[in-house]
Amino acid sequence: MVTETHFQKELEELKESLLRMAATVEEAIRDSVQSLVRRDSELAQKTFGFEDRINKMEIVIDDMCLRLLALRQPMATDLRFITSAMKIITDLERMGDQAVNIAERAISLNQEPQLKPYIDIPRMAEIAQTMVKDVLDAFVNRDSKLARSVCERDDLVDGLNDQVVRELLTYMVSDQKAINRAVHLMIVARCLERIADHATNIAEDVIFMVDALVIKHHADEKKEEEA
Amino acid sequence: MVTETHFQKELEELKESLLRMAATVEEAIRDSVQSLVRRDSELAQKTFGFEDRINKMEIVIDDMCLRLLALRQPMATDLRFITSAMKIITDLERMGDQAVNIAERAISLNQEPQLKPYIDIPRMAEIAQTMVKDVLDAFVNRDSKLARSVCERDDLVDGLNDQVVRELLTYMVSDQKAINRAVHLMIVARCLERIADHATNIAEDVIFMVDALVIKHHADEKKEEEA
Repeated sequence: MVTETHFQKELEELKESLLRMAATVEEAIRDSVQSLVRRDSELAQKTFGFEDRINKMEIVIDDMCLRLLALRQPMATDLRFITSAMKIITDLERMGDQAVNIAERAISLNQEPQLKPYIDIPRMAEIAQTMVKDVLDAFVNRDSKLARSVCERDDLVDGLNDQVVRELLTYMVSDQKAINRAVHLMIVARCLERIADHATNIAEDVIFMVDALVIKHHADEKKEEEA
Repeated sequence: MVTETHFQKELEELKESLLRMAATVEEAIRDSVQSLVRRDSELAQKTFGFEDRINKMEIVIDDMCLRLLALRQPMATDLRFITSAMKIITDLERMGDQAVNIAERAISLNQEPQLKPYIDIPRMAEIAQTMVKDVLDAFVNRDSKLARSVCERDDLVDGLNDQVVRELLTYMVSDQKAINRAVHLMIVARCLERIADHATNIAEDVIFMVDALVIKHHADEKKEEEA
């Protein structure tokens, strides 16, 4: 019973670490987009520091998961939870890379006059951030309803991205001098779209995990007993 | 000893399944790009069938890995190998999605006159395919040198993508009627770039995995290598 409780405590620590990593990724997205909106290249420079922090978090959590797998030899539900966590941190790390990419574009864009007011891009960023937060909450709480709502929001982000691309194309067509800045902005929008894609990928895993849990619930209990 | 041999056999089966999944992904990439180059929308339609096959392979291999973790309780190297395999199949599945995306664009593009001869895109596809093949070989054979060569090829694909984007922008600027087709082609190039990114992500995992192994087992040799 002592070991069981200890294992539960370790699982709680894993959940907390995941939520901390997600919060850091959210922060990186927010700061990178703010550095563009406020034309604050110093903030953009600061954003680069997130990359290293997020990479380190990934390694620490990955290691935590490996140790849990090796030492606790979890079965069924916990096993699936830990291996899913290992996949999720890969997605989170790649979101961090996208935030850095946005900050790089912001630095280039801030050196030139602003092409247009930024309206859709901050909206995309806001939605992407809530998707990151909610999908991790959905994961740790095994909440497939919340995960489904994350998947739905992906369409919103895709729609905004299409809108941004269409608008920027008209700028490009009417003014050749706008092309460079328009391409940078398209890439920013694409980065946000990719972040939303990563969140959606996690959400799909959560749905799969929770649904499989419901379907296999009794079978798993049996298997655990047998083992 | 019997159990050990049986476990080794199961690991071999896992490796073979991974290589089969990678080969299917390669095929999907090749067919989707060929459907564009040959303007063969029937082939593009056929490509959609890969999505389902690849998704099923992912589920089967994921299950295989979970069973190995639960029943064999592998330690150290094998544990890392199995959890890496679980991450790799996620990347492979997403590459399959990109191939489907390419086939969708091909169908749209094949309905209009060809904007330009396709030269760089088939080259990108060829490189991306060899990256997929080589990175899986690198993984199953724990070959970090081959994995490093995959990372290097990512720059080639990025360079070609930049070239494609620049070229298409000139088409867009000079002829408004070209914009729609140019955007489709940019997306095709971006899909190939993403496929290469996934292969590079796997390659980085392989390098990390093999290096961790080297550090653990041949600490001295590793130091010499770095020096």
